[in-house]
Amino acid sequence: MKSIAIIVAGYGNVGKAFIRLVHRKHAEVENTYGLDLRISGISTGSHGCLGMKDGFNLQDLVSGVFSADRFPNSVSYQNTLEMIAKSKADVFIENTPVNYETGQPAVSFLTSALENGMHIVTANKGPVVHAFEKLTTLANKMGKKFLFESTVMDGAPIFSVIREALPAMQINGFEGILNSCTNLILCRMEKGESFEQAVHYAQSIGIAETDPSGDVDGWDAAVKVAALSTVLLHNPVIPQQIKRSGIRSITEADMHKAHETGKRWKLICTAERTTSGWVLSVAPQMIGPKSPFFSVEGTSSYILFKSDVLPGLGILESNPSPDTTAYGMLADILNIYSHEKDV
Amino acid sequence: MKSIAIIVAGYGNVGKAFIRLVHRKHAEVENTYGLDLRISGISTGSHGCLGMKDGFNLQDLVSGVFSADRFPNSVSYQNTLEMIAKSKADVFIENTPVNYETGQPAVSFLTSALENGMHIVTANKGPVVHAFEKLTTLANKMGKKFLFESTVMDGAPIFSVIREALPAMQINGFEGILNSCTNLILCRMEKGESFEQAVHYAQSIGIAETDPSGDVDGWDAAVKVAALSTVLLHNPVIPQQIKRSGIRSITEADMHKAHETGKRWKLICTAERTTSGWVLSVAPQMIGPKSPFFSVEGTSSYILFKSDVLPGLGILESNPSPDTTAYGMLADILNIYSHEKDV
Repeated sequence: MKSIAIIVAGYGNVGKAFIRLVHRKHAEVENTYGLDLRISGISTGSHGCLGMKDGFNLQDLVSGVFSADRFPNSVSYQNTLEMIAKSKADVFIENTPVNYETGQPAVSFLTSALENGMHIVTANKGPVVHAFEKLTTLANKMGKKFLFESTVMDGAPIFSVIREALPAMQINGFEGILNSCTNLILCRMEKGESFEQAVHYAQSIGIAETDPSGDVDGWDAAVKVAALSTVLLHNPVIPQQIKRSGIRSITEADMHKAHETGKRWKLICTAERTTSGWVLSVAPQMIGPKSPFFSVEGTSSYILFKSDVLPGLGILESNPSPDTTAYGMLADILNIYSHEKDV
Repeated sequence: MKSIAIIVAGYGNVGKAFIRLVHRKHAEVENTYGLDLRISGISTGSHGCLGMKDGFNLQDLVSGVFSADRFPNSVSYQNTLEMIAKSKADVFIENTPVNYETGQPAVSFLTSALENGMHIVTANKGPVVHAFEKLTTLANKMGKKFLFESTVMDGAPIFSVIREALPAMQINGFEGILNSCTNLILCRMEKGESFEQAVHYAQSIGIAETDPSGDVDGWDAAVKVAALSTVLLHNPVIPQQIKRSGIRSITEADMHKAHETGKRWKLICTAERTTSGWVLSVAPQMIGPKSPFFSVEGTSSYILFKSDVLPGLGILESNPSPDTTAYGMLADILNIYSHEKDV
């Protein structure tokens, strides 16, 4: 049995779901992988930053609020960077809020964690778009892994399936529905809601932000295209380089026209290889029922890869939740150590 | 650079596509994986069985018929078993015709190859359904791998994605369109062809056998369900245990009814976990446009997994060919050695 000390930065819905999943899967992971997963530090936005050398009691973590009062034997860190520097953990899990502009402070956290000898796993698109090469180079230098499965399509295997299962595949392009929020809004508009009503609904269930522009203007989708392009197409770009239209321009008349012709509006992300390089875009399209995009409902997402060896490989994730994102991070950890076990 | 000697049994469309792919990817595989893939033996149905100690010239293999005349320096083996025993190869690739009843002679070939110290890779469902446990046990004992990605959905990653990318996932069921031939026949019938006309077309392009009953009566689909159940659900079954209806009973009136209601007939494979165990079935269903099965066209295939960590994970393979099946076998080889490289 190998004990794995994990520290977690970011304790919102996904961070909490990750702790619940580690708790629920603890015995199974011990039995199947020989790994005793321990949570030895948590850094929160507003409830401080605590460490526990041999790991918090997982049952206690999942059954109440996170506070120094409930964990009197814990040590208190000033902030996330101090936790990283002092915890001597094996794995750093990063899921702080995304910063589309710079990827900070996540990039600094992840850099420091690598420098302190940890594997790093993030659910945050910011550092993948802004620091993929830098973090990958540093990870290789330190003999550690940098994984980020949950950044695109939550826990569905996108980066991992291409990395682990599809060797020697040359990707020639992809098309995808990668933003849950806009897909949900378009589905609600099909049922007669106005754009504003649909946004309000998405906000009410926590899918859209108070300022929904990151989703509805296609920024989130563009960041995901940038991440996929950077990692899978070896074509590093920033979101600003992607041709981008959101869904604000779709009118009731447009919805009506789609309905009349048996079609649906979808916000489609595209990467196409041309003789003059990659063409990357995010734009609404009317989709007919013979397309695999047609049946992508609500917050589900879908990607279709074209490659030199598989003419069309589609991956659907239906009904995601914070639990799904949490699984992507757990899968990253187990994939890191299952390769180590081969050693 | 590590030299890998590969012997191949079965030289039909898939066997030939595999050799073409090894030829096309040879330099890439050398550069990326440090593996020099060599074809050091081929056993054919009617053109004999030849070996070449340091590997055949790949360009010569792909550019003409396979015969002793064209390879005067080759050695001639009496049969596949002699090739396995004498070739001292590293990997045995098996793609002889499927035997639904017993899995033979493939099971004997694969057993002998393991006993002779080779990794084994097959595109043949027979041995997976009839000898999965026996071959897996022997492979483990010999320290070798037994992989079979191409047996279900050709080269699309099914077994590999679950094995390599989705750790600690408990599968609770699946639904899939797994037989290309019946899906193509149903698509043709939608366009007005009779069942007989559609079968005839499928035969004319090499998708259906002269006796099409293995496909149209649901046997091929049932064998794939049995393979998935045995390997992924840890529930070993033979095809005869699966509740099975084919597509012969679908009348023109049924097609008409589907068309009128905006639906399509699909042959759906299902595995459902119940309190009394797994319920496995193959049966035609009418599918509406909001299902991911609706858009599965022609010879494409699709599977949707339900699990404890991802509510719905769908995988589509569109437009497969012998090249796609060949890629599944190449991927198996590279996955074997990329894990060895970790050692």
